[in-house]
Amino acid sequence: MATELPFVLGIDIGGQTAKCGVVNARGEVLAQTIMVSNTHTEAASFVADLAKTLQKLIADAGIDGQVRGIGVGAPNGNYYTGEIKDAPNLSWAHEKNIPFAKMLSEAMGGLPVALTNDANAAAMGEMTYGVAKGMKNFIMITLGTGVGSGIVIDGNVLYGHDGFAGELGHTCAVRGGRTCGCGRKGCLEAYCSAIGVARSASEWLEQHPDEPSLLRLRENITSKDVYEAAKAGDKAAKEIFDFTGEILGRSFADFIAFSAPEAIVLFGGLARAREFLYEPILKSMNENVLPLWKDKVKLLFSSLSESDAAILGASALAWNL
Amino acid sequence: MATELPFVLGIDIGGQTAKCGVVNARGEVLAQTIMVSNTHTEAASFVADLAKTLQKLIADAGIDGQVRGIGVGAPNGNYYTGEIKDAPNLSWAHEKNIPFAKMLSEAMGGLPVALTNDANAAAMGEMTYGVAKGMKNFIMITLGTGVGSGIVIDGNVLYGHDGFAGELGHTCAVRGGRTCGCGRKGCLEAYCSAIGVARSASEWLEQHPDEPSLLRLRENITSKDVYEAAKAGDKAAKEIFDFTGEILGRSFADFIAFSAPEAIVLFGGLARAREFLYEPILKSMNENVLPLWKDKVKLLFSSLSESDAAILGASALAWNL
Repeated sequence: MATELPFVLGIDIGGQTAKCGVVNARGEVLAQTIMVSNTHTEAASFVADLAKTLQKLIADAGIDGQVRGIGVGAPNGNYYTGEIKDAPNLSWAHEKNIPFAKMLSEAMGGLPVALTNDANAAAMGEMTYGVAKGMKNFIMITLGTGVGSGIVIDGNVLYGHDGFAGELGHTCAVRGGRTCGCGRKGCLEAYCSAIGVARSASEWLEQHPDEPSLLRLRENITSKDVYEAAKAGDKAAKEIFDFTGEILGRSFADFIAFSAPEAIVLFGGLARAREFLYEPILKSMNENVLPLWKDKVKLLFSSLSESDAAILGASALAWNL
Repeated sequence: MATELPFVLGIDIGGQTAKCGVVNARGEVLAQTIMVSNTHTEAASFVADLAKTLQKLIADAGIDGQVRGIGVGAPNGNYYTGEIKDAPNLSWAHEKNIPFAKMLSEAMGGLPVALTNDANAAAMGEMTYGVAKGMKNFIMITLGTGVGSGIVIDGNVLYGHDGFAGELGHTCAVRGGRTCGCGRKGCLEAYCSAIGVARSASEWLEQHPDEPSLLRLRENITSKDVYEAAKAGDKAAKEIFDFTGEILGRSFADFIAFSAPEAIVLFGGLARAREFLYEPILKSMNENVLPLWKDKVKLLFSSLSESDAAILGASALAWNL
């Protein structure tokens, strides 16, 4: 419609930075900026700074008065209530139930704000602009510092009764296994996040004291080190990815039995290790899934650049405002 | 609307019998009949007999020309395609992809037929007439010969990409555990179906050769024997229900992380053992679930009588035809 405002803002809030962008209806990020997000200790000061950043972005892009709304993806963001609830990775979100959408809307002169968690935003982005374009049923798994998920059912993100649906990183992958950041044991996240892969590497080195590995040269092994070692042909690093893929695949087999998706889409820093993860995941997924889904569910990797995807995903929310 | 036909037929097809009923818009089963379903070896003869049974039911009820449509719940029934696919428990459904809805509609002079699987039908029934009335998000778990599930999201049964969503009985409860009827290992169904409980009883007796139990008097222990022994105060039988409840509870914790339901509703023969299952399930569910859902998700038992529920659930499908 000619009278509709042509731009939205997409904001991806993480523990270190908030990425903000101006997006048009064709899904092009026309301008973007990054704000440091780990120095605030209170929600009010974070929101005030964010509003300043957004106003400058709007002014610099020359689109004052042409913004339809703001979409925000943030850890523990709740779509129904607009609140961020007790997000351990955000330095300013230790208070319970911060009415984030309302606060940001007020600071932005009443512009409508929609909030969801970061993984749901990624799923929206992938469905609107990425490899899941046109798909009505898929599961987005984000492999980053943690393991998140956004579940799409009949073309809509699944929020559930309370807005918190899709915590697949905290389903049990190994009964009685590693302690997870959430305090429980054996969560998928404890094995298949960036941190989980680093833990797997340390365990592997301990359990195989006589086997050589490039990883022995590192002090505090990160998942990036494991990736680089695997690229350099390191056998240990490849085994660690095989192990990670096996655990992901068998969890995916159970997720498939729940929602019968057309595809599982992987996204996030660790998904860059596609060359080492794709085969082990697919093998394990097809070995563990009910026969009726064997070789039927696609395993895809996000095609969006990570910085764009986060902004695009959050912005996709704002078109419905 | 005055011109709409006032009755639907609900049919619940099981391995032994097909239960058929006439239902009005208030959810009253006005007439019903049962047909034996385990003597047919071909779909065509089963459908022909079923059509005869239904025509007699319509004639006896005096509602000729007043039936709006037919809803059918059957193992492996697919809502999207109207097909029954390779259902191991149906003597006449060994052929793959039987176009059941089309066959029955033709045999019934073109009356519209909607098909879904039995657990989805039970979920429809519970949402329309039972304890889940008014709920938009819940998970129905049927504890019968097998373990089935019907998942309701935003007021609709979840079918997924291919119509087969909601096979929660075949998610992994015990990694590398008991062999399941599906050929895989450790499925929830292998532990928490009627057959699974009977297996748990046999295992318990073997593992505790010196402990007395009423169950030692039985030759081929069934879940009903375990229930009756528990009612008589048998310690072993109670421990078997504790074990069953613990496994159900931890699986439910993972299901909650998927769809954040308002409630989990139990239905089926084994759910009659509510007095022995409720506490162990609830305890295990709340111990294993992510803290944000602790003590928040209801555990309910179906309030519908089993014979009515099956017919009502299937009939609920037919109102949308």
